[in-house]
Amino acid sequence: MVTEAANDRSADILPAAIAAVSAEIDAFFDTLLAVPDDGRARLYQAMRHAAIGGGKRLRPLLVSATCALFNVDRERAIRVGAAIECIHVYSLIHDDMPCMDDDDMRRGKPTVHKAYDEATAVLAGDSLHALAFELLADPLTHPDPFVQVELIAELARASGPAGMAGGQMMDLAAETAGAAFDLAAVTRLQQLKTGALIGFCLEAGAIMGRVRPEGRTGLRGYAHDIGLAFQIVDDLLDAEGDAAAVGKAVGKDAGAGKATFVSLMGAPRARAQAAMLVDQAIRHLHLFGAEADLLRAIARFVLDRDR
Amino acid sequence: MVTEAANDRSADILPAAIAAVSAEIDAFFDTLLAVPDDGRARLYQAMRHAAIGGGKRLRPLLVSATCALFNVDRERAIRVGAAIECIHVYSLIHDDMPCMDDDDMRRGKPTVHKAYDEATAVLAGDSLHALAFELLADPLTHPDPFVQVELIAELARASGPAGMAGGQMMDLAAETAGAAFDLAAVTRLQQLKTGALIGFCLEAGAIMGRVRPEGRTGLRGYAHDIGLAFQIVDDLLDAEGDAAAVGKAVGKDAGAGKATFVSLMGAPRARAQAAMLVDQAIRHLHLFGAEADLLRAIARFVLDRDR
Repeated sequence: MVTEAANDRSADILPAAIAAVSAEIDAFFDTLLAVPDDGRARLYQAMRHAAIGGGKRLRPLLVSATCALFNVDRERAIRVGAAIECIHVYSLIHDDMPCMDDDDMRRGKPTVHKAYDEATAVLAGDSLHALAFELLADPLTHPDPFVQVELIAELARASGPAGMAGGQMMDLAAETAGAAFDLAAVTRLQQLKTGALIGFCLEAGAIMGRVRPEGRTGLRGYAHDIGLAFQIVDDLLDAEGDAAAVGKAVGKDAGAGKATFVSLMGAPRARAQAAMLVDQAIRHLHLFGAEADLLRAIARFVLDRDR
Repeated sequence: MVTEAANDRSADILPAAIAAVSAEIDAFFDTLLAVPDDGRARLYQAMRHAAIGGGKRLRPLLVSATCALFNVDRERAIRVGAAIECIHVYSLIHDDMPCMDDDDMRRGKPTVHKAYDEATAVLAGDSLHALAFELLADPLTHPDPFVQVELIAELARASGPAGMAGGQMMDLAAETAGAAFDLAAVTRLQQLKTGALIGFCLEAGAIMGRVRPEGRTGLRGYAHDIGLAFQIVDDLLDAEGDAAAVGKAVGKDAGAGKATFVSLMGAPRARAQAAMLVDQAIRHLHLFGAEADLLRAIARFVLDRDR
């Protein structure tokens, strides 16, 4: 799909950036989650199962692409990206459990409660949750406690009841609310459920880059737009995708009679809306030059991905 | 039970201190967990159900008693106590779930997954977990980010896989390991499962009081000893207590064939060991005068409690 702002060669840089960030995040988790020789071995194995070697690493990629705009040290970017990925992975582990979405497959592998058991899934999620904050409070991640506290406050807000966890609760309500859920309600739900954490990825780069809040408007607009586009594409993949390619079960939303962007707008309008949001996201970067090409490429990837 | 160091009148001050801290923590949670008028209402109601109006508030009490030694502002002590209580309550919600301990009653009320449902219990626990760190990262809790980061790092460590969550995993392993679990293994398990968070309560007071690490030895010894005594008494209550008085099911450990202090030592030796630990905990406070009487009273309460 060709977008208005596609007259740069930024798509070329994306595969290498994804490969680099993925390798760095995997290596980081490999060290962080070294399996202890005691009764916690199974816990660490379950965390490794979920955290290593899977996913698009979209969030760490967004952090490192934003950090690159402001010359933030790469190692710091990866450590903060890993902290956000800890939150993302914990939410997937809990969300896949039988009492929540009841999914057997994730990233092409059995989910944690399938590969291990439900109790281990609860504790592996809780452990990754705590590790996220331990990482951000580590001086190796950033030597300035003012920066650390701002990162921690924002991550806690983005992942807690005013963010991701709150959005997941709205999502559960959506399954029973039926027609009462309109487009505004679904948009708000998704802004909390996935948008808040994606927004934090850009915010984290700006915090480490010591960009003043008033200088973050463009990045916030970008994050808002790709967050929403991301979820619309997720709904499209669920409605039309192939389970093997997507790496998890599809067709679940329609099966559950759940209100989604696709059920409310229809697939063609949803696809056009996602494309419009991605164009708009790219226009939010107009103050940046070629150094923002990776963020532009990520925006297009959000639209064109098949998993 | 009269302990060696009981020649002070400190027991008199305990009921008033418990009542004051309980009221302050309840009032704090009442504001923090104000129910929003959207799809997250049920989530907040579930958090309120678990967090307000129950429990001994032992952890906030320990924080405020330690803070009082170093003239730390009372409001800061209560906010940090509330953050720790968020972690404690989240762990109870998850631990009570059917895939974990499968408990129907907690603090004399139905557990969250019974009063609501399992999905809400997962998300209420996750939300309280995030709120704990949001509270510590709030400048209202402490204006010095150096102090905040130290509090956050220590709480994350005490509650994550190297602390509470790791101990819970060992506890699951204990149920299947049988005879392989000796006294050293149970002690280590409990030091992670409950000892680490209790230890953090004292540490938090010392951090806010700007006590250097080398000055914290006595408080650490106290925390270590009451943490272990607390768990031995828990095992005794489970083996011999009355469910109505304890506020949750009892006799579960023996029923599950689980190795506990009582099963490994026998009740009389376990009781003597707990008394010895409490005496030792009180001796660790010898450098403090009457201003540590509340900590002394808490130590005796740990031993004499019936719930």
